[in-house]
Amino acid sequence: MFSKTPPLPYYAVIFSSRLSSESEAYREMADKMAQLAALQPGFLGCESVRGENGFGITVSYWSDEKAIAGWKANAEHRIAQEIGKRSWYEHYEIRIAKVERAYGK
Amino acid sequence: MFSKTPPLPYYAVIFSSRLSSESEAYREMADKMAQLAALQPGFLGCESVRGENGFGITVSYWSDEKAIAGWKANAEHRIAQEIGKRSWYEHYEIRIAKVERAYGK
Repeated sequence: MFSKTPPLPYYAVIFSSRLSSESEAYREMADKMAQLAALQPGFLGCESVRGENGFGITVSYWSDEKAIAGWKANAEHRIAQEIGKRSWYEHYEIRIAKVERAYGK
Repeated sequence: MFSKTPPLPYYAVIFSSRLSSESEAYREMADKMAQLAALQPGFLGCESVRGENGFGITVSYWSDEKAIAGWKANAEHRIAQEIGKRSWYEHYEIRIAKVERAYGK
């Protein structure tokens, strides 16, 4: 659940989304993308939750902007992005942010 | 669910947490804190999801670091932070990040 991120700074991609409808095909693609992302250079971790109302937040962590661009351009991920935009997501927001401070319990 | 955030840049506070146990008292405090945060200077919005396993992500958006510091120092919020650390959260991570790019559907 929690990502073990390295010393600062690093980047976060905050992906907020609402699904049009939950489906087996969506879950399969989401699982596959999570596995693929983890193999991508510069991937640091991923935290994700989806509520029963279809609204979800996924935060992935990356070493730098180049790593984020690499993942966005991944061929299989590009297909998933396209299907997501057309079919699965009613709405989404993506925010790319540089993590400047971090602490926890 | 989605926050209508202003033109860049602005800040995100990514709060990932796992509850020790779900309780009515926790939900009441969480609702109260969400209402209080929204009154705080520099507050821009908040997106939050908690899964059935007790893991949740809340991302709040703020105009700048001063606004984040102001909310952290809020008297009622400080009490909630203390109770949260002692009683409600088994584990949490807080990351403060400067949003540099944003887009959506």
